[in-house]
Amino acid sequence: MNKDFKPYYAVIFTSTQKENVEGYAEMAARMEELAKQQPGYLGIDSARNEVGITVSYWESLDAIKNWKKQSEHLAAQLKGRQDWYRWYNVRICKVEREYEFNS
Amino acid sequence: MNKDFKPYYAVIFTSTQKENVEGYAEMAARMEELAKQQPGYLGIDSARNEVGITVSYWESLDAIKNWKKQSEHLAAQLKGRQDWYRWYNVRICKVEREYEFNS
Repeated sequence: MNKDFKPYYAVIFTSTQKENVEGYAEMAARMEELAKQQPGYLGIDSARNEVGITVSYWESLDAIKNWKKQSEHLAAQLKGRQDWYRWYNVRICKVEREYEFNS
Repeated sequence: MNKDFKPYYAVIFTSTQKENVEGYAEMAARMEELAKQQPGYLGIDSARNEVGITVSYWESLDAIKNWKKQSEHLAAQLKGRQDWYRWYNVRICKVEREYEFNS
C-alpha cells in the first residue's frame, strides 16, 4: 500500500439498454472523447455484456459536477433516458485505496 | 438525492487476461456464489470486453477485508495471478451518493 496515495473519485455507471440503440455507439465515443478534455479527468474503463459498466475517474467532486452539467453531455444524458437506457444507476465514490498486479 | 443515504463500499476490480483462461469461468462463478454468502455482501456487477470490470458492493471495509482473506478466495486469487490475469487493479471505494433512472 502506498503511504502517499492521494484519494480521488470514481463514478460507477451501470446500465441496461433497450433493444434498439441506434446512434448509441457514436454518442458513447463522442462522450468519452469529450470527458477526456474535461478538467480533472483521470481515466475511464468500460465493458458491456448483459449489464454495461462504465467507471470514470476524477480528481475531485467538483470535476464530476462540472462534467455532469457540461452542455453537450446534458443533451446526451437526455437522449440516453429517452431512447437508449432501460435502467441506469450512478454511484459517486471516493477511491480510498488501490493496488495493482502485473504478470 | 436521498437524505437517508447510508454510505457503503465498492471494490472496483479491472483486469486484462492471458490468452488461455481455461478454468476461469467456473472459478469466477464459484467466487460469485461464495461472495454472496459472505457477511456484509450487498451485490455484484460484472462485464468483460477488452477489459474486464467487476464491481462488488459491501457494507463495510471489514466485510471487504474478510472476503479478501477468505481461504477459498485466497487460493483463487493466487491461481488468478499465476494463470489467468495479465494485469489487474483493485480500488477500494466509499460510495458517497447514488441515483437511479428507470424508463
